[in-house]
Amino acid sequence: MDYRKESLKKHAEWRGKIEMVPRVEVDTREKLSLAYTPGVAEPCLAIQRDAEQSFALTRRWNTVPVITDGTAVLGLGDIGPEAGMPVMEGKCALFKAYGGVDAFPLCIRSKDVDEIVRTIELLAGSFGGINLEDISAPRCFEIERRLKEDLDIPVFHDDQHGTAIVLAAALTNALRLVGKRAEDITVVINGAGAAGIAIARFLLSYGVKEIVLCDREGILCEGGVFRNRAHGEIAACTNRRHLTGTLADALKGADVLVGVSVAGCVSKEMVASMAERAIVFSLANPVPEISREDALSAGAAVVGTGSSEKPNQINNVLVFPGLFRGALDVRATTVNAEMMLAASRAIAGCVGDELSVDRILPYAYEKRAHEAVAAAVAEAARRSGVAKR
Amino acid sequence: MDYRKESLKKHAEWRGKIEMVPRVEVDTREKLSLAYTPGVAEPCLAIQRDAEQSFALTRRWNTVPVITDGTAVLGLGDIGPEAGMPVMEGKCALFKAYGGVDAFPLCIRSKDVDEIVRTIELLAGSFGGINLEDISAPRCFEIERRLKEDLDIPVFHDDQHGTAIVLAAALTNALRLVGKRAEDITVVINGAGAAGIAIARFLLSYGVKEIVLCDREGILCEGGVFRNRAHGEIAACTNRRHLTGTLADALKGADVLVGVSVAGCVSKEMVASMAERAIVFSLANPVPEISREDALSAGAAVVGTGSSEKPNQINNVLVFPGLFRGALDVRATTVNAEMMLAASRAIAGCVGDELSVDRILPYAYEKRAHEAVAAAVAEAARRSGVAKR
Repeated sequence: MDYRKESLKKHAEWRGKIEMVPRVEVDTREKLSLAYTPGVAEPCLAIQRDAEQSFALTRRWNTVPVITDGTAVLGLGDIGPEAGMPVMEGKCALFKAYGGVDAFPLCIRSKDVDEIVRTIELLAGSFGGINLEDISAPRCFEIERRLKEDLDIPVFHDDQHGTAIVLAAALTNALRLVGKRAEDITVVINGAGAAGIAIARFLLSYGVKEIVLCDREGILCEGGVFRNRAHGEIAACTNRRHLTGTLADALKGADVLVGVSVAGCVSKEMVASMAERAIVFSLANPVPEISREDALSAGAAVVGTGSSEKPNQINNVLVFPGLFRGALDVRATTVNAEMMLAASRAIAGCVGDELSVDRILPYAYEKRAHEAVAAAVAEAARRSGVAKR
Repeated sequence: MDYRKESLKKHAEWRGKIEMVPRVEVDTREKLSLAYTPGVAEPCLAIQRDAEQSFALTRRWNTVPVITDGTAVLGLGDIGPEAGMPVMEGKCALFKAYGGVDAFPLCIRSKDVDEIVRTIELLAGSFGGINLEDISAPRCFEIERRLKEDLDIPVFHDDQHGTAIVLAAALTNALRLVGKRAEDITVVINGAGAAGIAIARFLLSYGVKEIVLCDREGILCEGGVFRNRAHGEIAACTNRRHLTGTLADALKGADVLVGVSVAGCVSKEMVASMAERAIVFSLANPVPEISREDALSAGAAVVGTGSSEKPNQINNVLVFPGLFRGALDVRATTVNAEMMLAASRAIAGCVGDELSVDRILPYAYEKRAHEAVAAAVAEAARRSGVAKR
């Protein structure tokens, strides 16, 4: 099927992939008086006395905005806030279908960090958590950092951490298959945007010691000249051997390639130069850095891509519905490293005995995977002391 | 029933009066590929080429935020954004139940006019219209005016215009009952906040020539000292006889009293001093300026209040669902005077042969009333040239 052509037709038929529905009846005078005036004054006053009651008496406890500025939508780049809406609506549909979360899409007409942060802060009282989406690097780092500092609800930039969490789950299972340990491997990440940098940070906390990050100009190395502060910071805690050169140089002898960059930038020769039993995660979408077939024929032992049409789809849809479900269930005040690691372990654990080179992750639409993530995240929030319930 | 006590209990059970649901299935790989990646790229690109396509390919065409800063909630006053949420959620439930509109509650943590305007402008690309709610005067006037200037979607401050529209409908039918004409009557409005000023403006455009506005310090008269610019402006085009004094002075010989002020501030003596066949609309909520019983016993011919427990409830719930339904259906770029007058006439017209002193308006939950408003508003938008569809 030509998904894109068919999808355009479907979107014109659907006229929206989500809708708001009442959970109360208002078809008699009596029902109206309970849900609306005069009865509604009482829950209002209860919240005025104690703002935390907004989590008990309104939908706030289950409501999360999917917020973008439209600057990094899919692989399409800066297409603008309105044009990002079909993705945001899709995400909201997935939030409810897989996690039971009431998500609402908000597209902000500004690229200014201060303005985006302020807008979200002003709206935060309406929500139980904040999901940032498709905001370009390096602005996304500052936006998320400042919101996390200021708000007492979970803030999560899906493109960074959702990708990192699901990738670490894929890596966990792939390492079991090839018989290697996280602390012994070298991981090369190609692409130093939001996802690449978040993956590097996450894999460090996960236990990987040797990570080499590349962008289009080659290997990031401490002491180099960097396009932004985030590159300088990540260079300072990766590439401990101080490699320089190109992606091809970085890949020689490496155990794992993580591609979060552009179509076709990895050759079969590069994969062939990697270590024995190499793992290739090639996530550029819709066309990967190297195709699954080419990576396998060049000797890779385990291959994952972003495509739903191939085995081992590595997509953050496995993360965000369950992660927010768990965080909301316990009224978490943040999303911390413990919760993210727990989500990653839970995803990896779902595969169980079915584990094989063509089955390193659960499918996106497997309900039990999202339930496992939710339970693990809720427990991690409680154990790490950030759960209010 | 003690609605307020019972309502608090119900709100704790409901845990939210609205929820977001998907309109698409995402339970197979194929469906996921159409509603989400990779298919979703195509509608995104279509909107990037032509932003107006966001009304055809996403839920924007049917989506309206109910936005407050929590400064003038019900009769409770400035209770804060989170505490306003139960009212906003209730409004959203009514929007869908009566108008089929997908409404979403947003509570803004700011009372600064610039900041509120900017926040709403930044979010406007996500919506087909903007419903402002429970924002205190005089800030609400400037917020609405600036948004109407800047945005090409309908902006409507419900507390002002919803109240004015339904009140004018009630007046239309009451005047038929008492055999008076709009151009001959004197209307006294007690309360010079958002609703009072909007009612005065609306009744002027409706054809009433003699309006006297009072606030807690008495009659507003051109040349006086005013608390804000809105008072000065409205004084300049009302009270043509330059009355001064108290509400009691204003009411002597008046044909209509409109109370949008506080409980119990109108005595039976004041009503008795009005003209023959007087009309009393006493809208303070939950306790009116004068009770229905007292107003009738003092000689009023027709009485309306804000209460759902008495005949002739005058509530803007008769307005906003149908008004936005009609405006959204034709992709109106604004809400203009023609559309508001059409809505008012449609509401009055719904009563038909049932018209009596105890039945001057349709009930809030009468589906056909909302449908009539929607049809009239859509037609008025087309005729006045503000419909894009």
